Amino acid sequence: MSGNSFGKIFKISTWGESHGAGLGVVVEGCPAGLPIKESEIQKELDRRRTGQSKVTTTRKEGDRIKILSGVFEGKTLGTPIALAVENEDADSSKYELIKDLYRPGHADYTYDMKFGFRDHRGGGRSSARETVGRVAAGAIAKKLLARKKVRITGYTRQIGPLVAQTFDFGEIEKNIIRCPDKKMAEKMIDHIMDARKKGDSVGGIVELVVEGVPAGWGEPVFDRLDADLAKAMMSLPAVKGVEFGAGFGAALMLGSECNDVFIKKGRKITTRTNNAGGVLGGISNGADIVLRLVVKPTSSINREQDTVTRKGKAAKIRVEGRHDPCICPRAVPIAEAMAALTLADHYLRQQVSRLDT
Amino acid sequence: MSGNSFGKIFKISTWGESHGAGLGVVVEGCPAGLPIKESEIQKELDRRRTGQSKVTTTRKEGDRIKILSGVFEGKTLGTPIALAVENEDADSSKYELIKDLYRPGHADYTYDMKFGFRDHRGGGRSSARETVGRVAAGAIAKKLLARKKVRITGYTRQIGPLVAQTFDFGEIEKNIIRCPDKKMAEKMIDHIMDARKKGDSVGGIVELVVEGVPAGWGEPVFDRLDADLAKAMMSLPAVKGVEFGAGFGAALMLGSECNDVFIKKGRKITTRTNNAGGVLGGISNGADIVLRLVVKPTSSINREQDTVTRKGKAAKIRVEGRHDPCICPRAVPIAEAMAALTLADHYLRQQVSRLDT
Amino acid sequence: MSGNSFGKIFKISTWGESHGAGLGVVVEGCPAGLPIKESEIQKELDRRRTGQSKVTTTRKEGDRIKILSGVFEGKTLGTPIALAVENEDADSSKYELIKDLYRPGHADYTYDMKFGFRDHRGGGRSSARETVGRVAAGAIAKKLLARKKVRITGYTRQIGPLVAQTFDFGEIEKNIIRCPDKKMAEKMIDHIMDARKKGDSVGGIVELVVEGVPAGWGEPVFDRLDADLAKAMMSLPAVKGVEFGAGFGAALMLGSECNDVFIKKGRKITTRTNNAGGVLGGISNGADIVLRLVVKPTSSINREQDTVTRKGKAAKIRVEGRHDPCICPRAVPIAEAMAALTLADHYLRQQVSRLDT
Amino acid sequence: MSGNSFGKIFKISTWGESHGAGLGVVVEGCPAGLPIKESEIQKELDRRRTGQSKVTTTRKEGDRIKILSGVFEGKTLGTPIALAVENEDADSSKYELIKDLYRPGHADYTYDMKFGFRDHRGGGRSSARETVGRVAAGAIAKKLLARKKVRITGYTRQIGPLVAQTFDFGEIEKNIIRCPDKKMAEKMIDHIMDARKKGDSVGGIVELVVEGVPAGWGEPVFDRLDADLAKAMMSLPAVKGVEFGAGFGAALMLGSECNDVFIKKGRKITTRTNNAGGVLGGISNGADIVLRLVVKPTSSINREQDTVTRKGKAAKIRVEGRHDPCICPRAVPIAEAMAALTLADHYLRQQVSRLDT
Repeated sequence: MSGNSFGKIFKISTWGESHGAGLGVVVEGCPAGLPIKESEIQKELDRRRTGQSKVTTTRKEGDRIKILSGVFEGKTLGTPIALAVENEDADSSKYELIKDLYRPGHADYTYDMKFGFRDHRGGGRSSARETVGRVAAGAIAKKLLARKKVRITGYTRQIGPLVAQTFDFGEIEKNIIRCPDKKMAEKMIDHIMDARKKGDSVGGIVELVVEGVPAGWGEPVFDRLDADLAKAMMSLPAVKGVEFGAGFGAALMLGSECNDVFIKKGRKITTRTNNAGGVLGGISNGADIVLRLVVKPTSSINREQDTVTRKGKAAKIRVEGRHDPCICPRAVPIAEAMAALTLADHYLRQQVSRLDT
Repeated sequence: MSGNSFGKIFKISTWGESHGAGLGVVVEGCPAGLPIKESEIQKELDRRRTGQSKVTTTRKEGDRIKILSGVFEGKTLGTPIALAVENEDADSSKYELIKDLYRPGHADYTYDMKFGFRDHRGGGRSSARETVGRVAAGAIAKKLLARKKVRITGYTRQIGPLVAQTFDFGEIEKNIIRCPDKKMAEKMIDHIMDARKKGDSVGGIVELVVEGVPAGWGEPVFDRLDADLAKAMMSLPAVKGVEFGAGFGAALMLGSECNDVFIKKGRKITTRTNNAGGVLGGISNGADIVLRLVVKPTSSINREQDTVTRKGKAAKIRVEGRHDPCICPRAVPIAEAMAALTLADHYLRQQVSRLDT
Repeated sequence: MSGNSFGKIFKISTWGESHGAGLGVVVEGCPAGLPIKESEIQKELDRRRTGQSKVTTTRKEGDRIKILSGVFEGKTLGTPIALAVENEDADSSKYELIKDLYRPGHADYTYDMKFGFRDHRGGGRSSARETVGRVAAGAIAKKLLARKKVRITGYTRQIGPLVAQTFDFGEIEKNIIRCPDKKMAEKMIDHIMDARKKGDSVGGIVELVVEGVPAGWGEPVFDRLDADLAKAMMSLPAVKGVEFGAGFGAALMLGSECNDVFIKKGRKITTRTNNAGGVLGGISNGADIVLRLVVKPTSSINREQDTVTRKGKAAKIRVEGRHDPCICPRAVPIAEAMAALTLADHYLRQQVSRLDT
Repeated sequence: MSGNSFGKIFKISTWGESHGAGLGVVVEGCPAGLPIKESEIQKELDRRRTGQSKVTTTRKEGDRIKILSGVFEGKTLGTPIALAVENEDADSSKYELIKDLYRPGHADYTYDMKFGFRDHRGGGRSSARETVGRVAAGAIAKKLLARKKVRITGYTRQIGPLVAQTFDFGEIEKNIIRCPDKKMAEKMIDHIMDARKKGDSVGGIVELVVEGVPAGWGEPVFDRLDADLAKAMMSLPAVKGVEFGAGFGAALMLGSECNDVFIKKGRKITTRTNNAGGVLGGISNGADIVLRLVVKPTSSINREQDTVTRKGKAAKIRVEGRHDPCICPRAVPIAEAMAALTLADHYLRQQVSRLDT
C-alpha cells in the first residue's frame, strides 16, 4: 500500500535511506529449490556500483551483500530471502548546508509535501541508492529466468543526440557507457565529459532486449506484460518515458505497416516484423521484448540555480556532492533488474493461468 | 492476481467479453457519502460509445449503464458499486469465418498461447469493449476528484504527422477527432478518411493534462504517481508508449535545461518550467500533470494480410468487421478514465501517509 | 482494501445489498479450461436458498444464477467470471418502520458508525443475502478441487445442548437441519420449533470435514491454511468462533496426548490421531481437515427488546420480518463454499511454491 | 502471496529462520511523523524473550533490536521501517541428530512436503523465533494506537483445567505465567512444573481485552475486524482455535439471551452486555473487544514418541532441546502484537472509508 513492494507472486519489498544504517530487500515468493550464491548477487551489484569510472559518482560503496535468510545449503527455502548491504561512505556534511533548500529536479520538495518532513541526507529514501535492493533481488530473478532460457540485455542506446548505430552485445560491458556501438561509445563519453566540465549533466535512452520469453506471459487486462514493465521502468529515478517496439514512432505508421504479420519459421509461429516489441494484447508473443526508457539528465549539477527555501523564500543553490554526470550506464543494470523482477513474476503467474492437464 | 483489477484503495475489477452477455465493473473502496447518479456515469460512457461519427466503428451499442449496488438514496454506501451494461449489437457471424486465423496486431494468438483456447467472437476479452467498465468506474473517480478541484482533460495531440498547434480546451469536444486545434482537427479527419478509403488505419498521440492535483500524491518507490499512470495508460489496448513532461525529449537536454527551478508565485511554491510533467520523485509537485500516450494504428484493416491458422498453416486474412480507422478520439475518454482511477486511488492513499495531526 | 474481496490467486469480489437490484460476484484467477455449467452453480445456491423448510425464513428468492462472462463453450476462459442473481422478493416495507431503530445483534449501528449512513432495507450489505455470491463462486472452487479429489462435507454438529452422536454423511442432506445423526436431527428440529414459538432463536455448531487435501497446502507464516480458513469462517455472519482438530479441548491436554505421532500406512506417511485437524505449522499434513464454527442464535427475534434510536433515544423494538429461527442448516453450504474458496486458492498457491523440476 | 506479509495499509513482512543469521521485519505503511524509539520496541521484545523464567526455554537470546531504516530524528519517515535482531545462541548440534526424523506436532513433515526440503535447524522458518519480527512491529502499532487511546491487554486465562477467577490487570506482569489472578497463577505454575518433570507439556487459553476502540473499525464483508483478528491469532504457532465474546458458549444461548441490547450511557450509545465481544457485523461497536485463543501444549517433549524418518521408516524420537513447557506466558505479548497490528491496519483503513466532510 505504501508503495515499497513490487510484484504479486515473485515480490520484493525494499527498505533503506541513502545515509541510514544500510539498505536491503526482502524477496517473497521465490520458489523453493533455486540454487543461488552470494557471489551471483554480488556480481550484479558490482555492475551498478558507484565509483566505477569517470562517468559515475565518486562515492565509494563496497555494497557487500549479505543473505540473511531464505537460503539453506545453497538453495532457496521457499521462505523470505532477506538481503542487505551496509552504508559505508555516507558523508552527510555537504547535505547539512542545503537541508533547508529544495534542489531542483529532486524530490526534496515533494517528500516534504507528502510526509511533512524528510531525511535530507543524500536525498534519503528518494536516492538512487534505494535501487541496491532492486538489483540484488533482480539477480535472483535472473537466476530463475535463466532456467527458462530467458536472457535480458540492457545498454545505452542514446546519449544526447548520439545514437548507437551498431548493436554488438559483446561490446556492452567493455566500455564505461555500456553502449553496444564501440565507436559511438567513445563519442558519448566525450559528450558527457564536456558537460561535466561545465558542471552540467546529460540525458539519454536505455534499451532493453529480452530474448527467450515464450508466448503466453502477461495478465490482461491491467497487468499486461508491457504495462507492468512500463511501471517497473517508470519506478526508476529519472525515467520520464517508456516505449515498446515501434513506440512513439507508431503514431506515424499506417496499420498495414505497423501490423506484424504472422509467419511460420520451421515449426514455430512467429512474426515477420517486431513493431509490437514482443507483446500483443498484453501477452508475450514469443518475439524479443524490446523496450526503451528515457533517462533525464542528472538533477544534481554543479551550477548555480534558482530555488526556494523550505519556508518559501527565494534562494540560490549549487549542488556540490558526488554525482553521476549521466545516469545511463548505471541505469542499465538497474533496468535489467526491474525487467527480471517483472518477468519472474509473470512467469510464475502464468503457471496458474490454465489447468495443468 | 489474474490481472483484472486496478488500484489499491480505490479499486476496480472489470469483467466481460465483447460478444458475451454484457460487461461491467465492480468498484471497491469508494468512500461512503459521495453523490453519484446513473446519468453522470452515462455521460462518460456516451463519450466513448461507438457509432458516433465517421471516424469510429459503426457497431451500435446503447451502453445503458445500470447501478446494481453500492448506491443508496443517491449516495455511495461505502460498499462495492456494481455497474453493468448489456451487449446488444454483438454480431458474431463475421468472426465465425476467421476463428481459426490469427489476426495480425491482435491478441488472438497470444490468448490462445496463454489460456489454451479463447472466445474468438469480437476478440473476446481482448476487445476494447472491455473498457466500458473502466469508463463507467472512471466517472465515479472523476466525481471524487472534482471535490478536490482536480480536472482531467484529454485530447488528440497528433494524428500521423499532423500535430496540434493550438490548445483551446473548449474546442476538444466540438470536433469528432477531439483535437484542441480546430483547424488541425479538419486536416486530421481528412487524413483518417484517406486511410480508411484504402482499407487502412492511422496512429496518433493522445495527451492528458491534469490540473489541480496538490503536491504530495504518489507512493514511492514503486507506486510512483507517474509509474502508476504509465501502467494505467499502457494497460489500454493499442498503446505502445507513454511519456511525462519533456518525455523522450529529455534525452537531448542538459541538466541545466531540464531542471525545473523552484519559484514563489504569490504564497505558493511552484516551478518556472514543467519538464517534469508535474511529478518529482514519483510524487506530484503541484504543477499540471502532463503525459502523452502513443496509440498504434487500428490492427483491424480491410486489406489482405499474411497470417497463419491456429494449426500453423500459412494463410491470408482480411478483417471486414466494423472498426475505428483511428483509435485516438475514443481513446481520449478512456485514457481520462484511467487517469481518474489512478489519481483517485493515490488521493486516498495520501490520506493515510502521515499522521492526522 | 475495502474488504469485499477474498483470496489471492483464486479471488472473489462480492457485491450487492439485500434489497437492491441484485447480488453477485466476480471470480478472478480460476484457471482456463475448467468445465462449468450454470446448473452446477445453481445446485449449490439451491442448498442455501431461503424458504426451504420450517426452520428457515419464508422469504422466497428463486436465486436464478446467470453466468455473465468468463465461460465459453462450457469452459472457463481464464478471464473474470461474473455471476449474478436478481432480488425478487425484497419487501422493504417492514423495514421502513424500524429504520431509525438499531436492531440488537445486528450491524445497523456499526454500519452507521462506519459509513455515516446505511441502506436500512433488510440490513443492506450486512444481510446474509450477500453470501449468495460466495456460494455461487464456491461452486466453481468445488469443481476445481474435485479434479484433485478434494471433498468438503459440512453439517450441523450441535444445536443448543444437542450434539450429534453418529456421523453418517449420507444422512446430512436428508433432514432439514443437515445433521448426520438422523435421530438427533429430529430432536434438534423440535428444539428449534419450540424456540420459534416463543419468538426466540437458537445457536449451534457447524462442523466441516475436508477429505483428500494432500500434504503441502498452506503458506506460512501468516497465510497458514488454518488461519485463512479461520478468517473465511469468521467472515460469515453470526459466527463467533472457530477451532481445528482438538480445538479448545487442547487446553486440557498434555503434549504427550495432543501430539499426533507419525506412522506408516501402506506407503503413505500419516498420523495415528488427528488432534491437529489436518494442519501442522499452517500446512496441510494429508489428514482430514476438521474444523468447527459456532453460530450464534439469529439476532432477529419476534420479542420486544430494548434499544435506542439513531438519535440515541431509548426505545423498544420487535423484529417482525421473515427470519430463520436457527442459522445452522443454511450456514452449512455457505461454510462449505468458504472452505472451497480458501482451499482452491491455496491449491493454486502451492503450484508456485517450489520449482517444477 | 507467499504468506509472509500481514496487513493491507499497515503491513509487515517478516523474514528469518531460527538458526540463520538473524530475524527481522519490514513495516510498510506506518504514517509519517510517529515518534518511536528503539527502547520502546526493545521493551516489547524483552517481554517475549526466552530464558525469562522456569516456565520458559533456556535458550538465551539478547534479541537486541536495531532500527535500520524509516526513522529519522526519532520519528517515522513514512518510508519502510526495517527492524532486525541477530541470532546469538543458536545451537544446531542437537538438531543434527534428528534432522531425518519428523518431530510429532511440528512442521518438519509439512515443510518437507511443501517445499521439497527444509532448514531442519531449530525448525527453521516454522520456529516461534519468527515472531520476534511480529513483536517488534507490534510495538510500533501499539504506539500508533496509543494516540487513539487504544489499549491491548493480554493474559493467561487458563492452564490445563485451571481457570483465572479474578482479573486484576495490574497482576499480570508480576507473575511468570502472566495470569491476572495471583493465586491461580501459583497453581498454574505448579501444574506446569509437574508436567515438565515428567518431560511433558501443557496447554492453555490466552485472553485479550482491547479497550478504547471506537465504533466503526472493520471492513465487511471479508475483512471483518473479528475475521482479521481471528486470522492474526491463528497465524501464531500452536494456536488451534479462537473465539469472541460469548464464543462457543453462544451455541447454548437463545437469541433473547445472546443479543446485546443497546442502551444510553451518558451521551454514548453502548450495549448492556458484551456477548458480541465488541464486534457486530464485522465492525467494532465501541465495547471492549474480547477474544480468546487456545494454545496447544508444546510439541517438543522430552519423552519417547513414535515417528517416521524422512524416508518413511518407523522410528522413535525424544526431543531434547530447550523448550517452553507451556507456551501461554510468551504467547501473551505475541498475541498482543498481532492484535495491535490488526487494529492499526483497520484504524488506517477506516480513515478512507467515508468522505472527510
